[in-house]
Amino acid sequence: MQAATFVEPGSIRLQEHRIPEIGPGEVLLRVTTTTICGTDVHIMKGEYPVRPGLIIGHEPVGVIESIGAGVTGYEVGQRVVVGAITPCGHCHPCLGGSTSQCGGKAMGGWRFGNTIDGCQAEYVRVPDAMVNLEPVPDELTDEQVLMCPDIMSTGFGGAENGRIRIGDTVVVFAQGPIGLCATAGARLQGATRIIAVESVPERAEMAKRLGADSVIDFTRDDPVAAIMEMTGGMGVDVAIEALGTQQTFESCLRVLRPGGVLSSLGVYSGKLTLPLDAFAAGLGDHSIVTTLCPGGKERMRRLLNVVKSGRVDLRPMITHRFSLDRIEEAYDLFANQQDGVLKVAITP
Amino acid sequence: MQAATFVEPGSIRLQEHRIPEIGPGEVLLRVTTTTICGTDVHIMKGEYPVRPGLIIGHEPVGVIESIGAGVTGYEVGQRVVVGAITPCGHCHPCLGGSTSQCGGKAMGGWRFGNTIDGCQAEYVRVPDAMVNLEPVPDELTDEQVLMCPDIMSTGFGGAENGRIRIGDTVVVFAQGPIGLCATAGARLQGATRIIAVESVPERAEMAKRLGADSVIDFTRDDPVAAIMEMTGGMGVDVAIEALGTQQTFESCLRVLRPGGVLSSLGVYSGKLTLPLDAFAAGLGDHSIVTTLCPGGKERMRRLLNVVKSGRVDLRPMITHRFSLDRIEEAYDLFANQQDGVLKVAITP
Amino acid sequence: MQAATFVEPGSIRLQEHRIPEIGPGEVLLRVTTTTICGTDVHIMKGEYPVRPGLIIGHEPVGVIESIGAGVTGYEVGQRVVVGAITPCGHCHPCLGGSTSQCGGKAMGGWRFGNTIDGCQAEYVRVPDAMVNLEPVPDELTDEQVLMCPDIMSTGFGGAENGRIRIGDTVVVFAQGPIGLCATAGARLQGATRIIAVESVPERAEMAKRLGADSVIDFTRDDPVAAIMEMTGGMGVDVAIEALGTQQTFESCLRVLRPGGVLSSLGVYSGKLTLPLDAFAAGLGDHSIVTTLCPGGKERMRRLLNVVKSGRVDLRPMITHRFSLDRIEEAYDLFANQQDGVLKVAITP
Amino acid sequence: MQAATFVEPGSIRLQEHRIPEIGPGEVLLRVTTTTICGTDVHIMKGEYPVRPGLIIGHEPVGVIESIGAGVTGYEVGQRVVVGAITPCGHCHPCLGGSTSQCGGKAMGGWRFGNTIDGCQAEYVRVPDAMVNLEPVPDELTDEQVLMCPDIMSTGFGGAENGRIRIGDTVVVFAQGPIGLCATAGARLQGATRIIAVESVPERAEMAKRLGADSVIDFTRDDPVAAIMEMTGGMGVDVAIEALGTQQTFESCLRVLRPGGVLSSLGVYSGKLTLPLDAFAAGLGDHSIVTTLCPGGKERMRRLLNVVKSGRVDLRPMITHRFSLDRIEEAYDLFANQQDGVLKVAITP
Repeated sequence: MQAATFVEPGSIRLQEHRIPEIGPGEVLLRVTTTTICGTDVHIMKGEYPVRPGLIIGHEPVGVIESIGAGVTGYEVGQRVVVGAITPCGHCHPCLGGSTSQCGGKAMGGWRFGNTIDGCQAEYVRVPDAMVNLEPVPDELTDEQVLMCPDIMSTGFGGAENGRIRIGDTVVVFAQGPIGLCATAGARLQGATRIIAVESVPERAEMAKRLGADSVIDFTRDDPVAAIMEMTGGMGVDVAIEALGTQQTFESCLRVLRPGGVLSSLGVYSGKLTLPLDAFAAGLGDHSIVTTLCPGGKERMRRLLNVVKSGRVDLRPMITHRFSLDRIEEAYDLFANQQDGVLKVAITP
Repeated sequence: MQAATFVEPGSIRLQEHRIPEIGPGEVLLRVTTTTICGTDVHIMKGEYPVRPGLIIGHEPVGVIESIGAGVTGYEVGQRVVVGAITPCGHCHPCLGGSTSQCGGKAMGGWRFGNTIDGCQAEYVRVPDAMVNLEPVPDELTDEQVLMCPDIMSTGFGGAENGRIRIGDTVVVFAQGPIGLCATAGARLQGATRIIAVESVPERAEMAKRLGADSVIDFTRDDPVAAIMEMTGGMGVDVAIEALGTQQTFESCLRVLRPGGVLSSLGVYSGKLTLPLDAFAAGLGDHSIVTTLCPGGKERMRRLLNVVKSGRVDLRPMITHRFSLDRIEEAYDLFANQQDGVLKVAITP
Repeated sequence: MQAATFVEPGSIRLQEHRIPEIGPGEVLLRVTTTTICGTDVHIMKGEYPVRPGLIIGHEPVGVIESIGAGVTGYEVGQRVVVGAITPCGHCHPCLGGSTSQCGGKAMGGWRFGNTIDGCQAEYVRVPDAMVNLEPVPDELTDEQVLMCPDIMSTGFGGAENGRIRIGDTVVVFAQGPIGLCATAGARLQGATRIIAVESVPERAEMAKRLGADSVIDFTRDDPVAAIMEMTGGMGVDVAIEALGTQQTFESCLRVLRPGGVLSSLGVYSGKLTLPLDAFAAGLGDHSIVTTLCPGGKERMRRLLNVVKSGRVDLRPMITHRFSLDRIEEAYDLFANQQDGVLKVAITP
Repeated sequence: MQAATFVEPGSIRLQEHRIPEIGPGEVLLRVTTTTICGTDVHIMKGEYPVRPGLIIGHEPVGVIESIGAGVTGYEVGQRVVVGAITPCGHCHPCLGGSTSQCGGKAMGGWRFGNTIDGCQAEYVRVPDAMVNLEPVPDELTDEQVLMCPDIMSTGFGGAENGRIRIGDTVVVFAQGPIGLCATAGARLQGATRIIAVESVPERAEMAKRLGADSVIDFTRDDPVAAIMEMTGGMGVDVAIEALGTQQTFESCLRVLRPGGVLSSLGVYSGKLTLPLDAFAAGLGDHSIVTTLCPGGKERMRRLLNVVKSGRVDLRPMITHRFSLDRIEEAYDLFANQQDGVLKVAITP
């Protein structure tokens, strides 16, 4: 089968692989639609190391091709979605509710395209299938549910872990795919003033469509000054970081009211420093929470509920479509953020 | 009256002041016992700026001398304790539960010895008296309740905000007065393995007395390595920082399991950096929470309940006693951590 | 001045009263708009006893007429809204977050039209003004904010205390004013399937307008059977009771999934029995939570945020308007639920 | 093998059964110690129906005899403890944290001695072994951990779900095995005043040993009046019901402060009525939470931590010991509460 493969830093190529064999508790999925994530670009660039030869991709929608021993409750031909994070469901951290940190190791639940072969391929082997496969209702298309595995779960998770309450003012720094979903999540949770920070016009537009009340273009206005003015000097209740830079992290703290929550979704590299003035030297009753994409089929079920309800429609985020054999082209486009790309749909 | 006064950086002196006058909603307290806090030493050294001439001190036990207009439910002669933090009770942040950040400004609830005259004096004016004065039961001595206003409230708050659950493993970095109270608080909340990090033998001993199961002397053992070994490589559920240095903050993150909580009590200066490897680049589902001493009379009532119950006895932490006229001597001793001092009792 | 007065069971009459005098900490409000609550009807009927001669009403919008000693931060002429519940802000329960149970007595925070004179009058005395008065922005009309004091706060509180999460299925039994606000609150909190139970067509219509996905007419279908079928036999995550009868309470339990939350808003009379089969004999991990309207100015601020944001618009619930001198007529209409009445606006 | 078997209402007999065969994901446990639960007595009496021929018992400590296909991480000969509740770990409710209600059916997680053969036998088949088997450290005896599967998990769960906070006053109605564990749990969580209600002297004594500050003998004093007096008329913060009768449930509500939590552990039969005066007609911000014994190996791990720490020692609760072949005698003693029995240890 064809599969997007990490060859070496700088290179993800479509290569031929054998169709995976499955063991007990596993399912073989024929991938019908998948997508590329910002993390995949980090992998491609060598910034996040994985083993050469690994198949990339962690956002599968597909159809069950075969079912391993011990797996019950599913049938061949069923269409399902699987989270980017595939917890085992039986280790102590999973049973303690820390499913993304499965096994007790940081990011332990992230296996697809990280520690096992991923889903930018014709087929993918799903481990711990009974914990992870969620059937997709017939009335929903692949594209409608394509964001559930990762960005919708992550973005909403940032809003949920920010403990947003009815009447809160929330800022979301950066409106890439994750930030856009955080905006939609903040709206779903009852924030009544959502300020997005973004300079790309298409993303600013999408932010408004998904729930932002206003968008600050940081190339024109200093977002910290603007937000403090907009809030009468009080700052925001919850600041969501969705980029992963020192500047946005720091800006979050600078606009956060004492007692507020900084909900961090970004992947940071280099150094990350807490500005002690904004952090009140540690005495401001601030909380900083980080969220790795929640996975597992119960999470998928809830996100499908959102899609079914029509409360949030993320289809407009799919700006481009490619067949799997053109995935290298898709990587080029996506990695370089050309042509207003937000998310691509890949169909094997 | 005599009062410990901030004169200039490097100098807190006993000076003569007029007895405060009180307005509506206020009470004049005759201080019977107070103490010196680490923060007072920061003030003395000029590291935390206050206005010259300010009376220092924020941990009062005393007797009501006179009662301002509009204050009901108290009587002259009643013995009371008042928190270090004196929230107003009627601003939006107070009503929203963020009493330590009263007024919406960082540390806004900390007024005694910071923005208004404090209690290392014969008398102190208590603002918003009905929100802040808690009667002390006759059966409790001043010294039994002397830690309630600040270190007990702060230390317990660190344990509470760490969201400790029955069966948790908790580490507390540094066993000064605050850290010792965090240790006691962790014990009260059901942590079943409490590891303290401390090198001073008297403090290590006190840590065990207050609930630590083991103490790591960081001058002998690398605490990060020791804790990871003690936990079979899994790390701790909650790490409490009670010193305020880059090293202890960083060590907290290094021993914290993915999904765990770093509860920070320290006052940081200079730079504070998040080690991205230990922080899993932001993907470890870690939380960092900070706590400023909770105040107000309901908090005091709960802490008095703890004292009355005998669950925690902090009297042994009072290692030295001075009359108010010898307070400069007390500052010398306390600031230089001489003679095994933990806390001093000052009696006007 | 004119004021709706409880005379004896069965009789609320417009009578002449002296304009209230205010003391320290209080404010005199000239009422500009108020409304009648279902509770007022209970009072009228003698089902909820208050003292004869008491002025009724607890939902004031008005303008500050005069300001008592010690009250700062407000000015004469300012337009404000005050919650139905007026906590003192300084008792132990208030400081512990239990403001509706101010003083530690059940319903202790409910004073207007219950233990002190209410606001169906030209003027009303507001106790603990600094805790309770929230300025209304100029851009909002009285009618836009008229639901904030009680039904919006109560209904949203039912949704909040139900701990609704993104993706939940929620049922709201009864779509009177409180139930309608619970529906709107469930929507605001991220419920993705909201089932309302109501037979009155206008209320069913309003329920859909405010966020219900479907409405069950209990005169046509058995709601328990219908909901169990709609949820594939799983039941709902959160069931909100907004009527106060044995039947609706019991139905809530019968459609609630094990581990779910019954959020009760109704005022019950007579007997209330827990059906042990639906309650799994106490072993179903069910929670039952009750909510009395949250008050205080911070609550009002948050609700005003909702109104300002346009997320929820309750103006269509005001179906009738009366001047104060016609309030007896308004009681007739409202108590007998004539002419499709939902809420009335009363203008002195 | 020999096993305690439900024959018909009124009769549990030791009968011969075949040693269970295990399938994929399962483990065969050789039971080394088990005990009898109050629920088993309900089963014996026919009050809780199970199918005739079923082996009873749900509190196993044992040694792994054989391991089914697909089970990894365990070895034959390993000593383990298993919770009374054995969740599957992969259904939606389990993944949503509602493990005791596994499968979405009330009490769905309770399988041993309820829907599958139990452990009052020489051998027991453990389903979903990787979710449920927790190794017992060598330093702990069987009897030290014998309460972990049910009463310790249940009693602690009642304290945890009561959301006890430092400084709370808590009452526990009834000091049978579950109530005693709730008392110990309340102590572990920071309650500073624990009032137990019990008339049997040995149980009252044990209550004090496990953490009660005082015990009310309801045959001498009216507990409601006594508790209201002890709390100065304020009532308790958390009331734990550990018997399952109308009277104790109602008394809990009568002593509960507005805003407090009734944490219910009892199994009720007949009718259960909410006294509307104590329930403030539904307006007292009361919460009623019920708890079915939390299970799964992570729960067992946490409880073993408690045992290891020495914080709580439940060995004194084992008042009698029987070999399995005398289990009918043990049922007689236990069902009739003779000879001061609290818990019995049964050794096959």
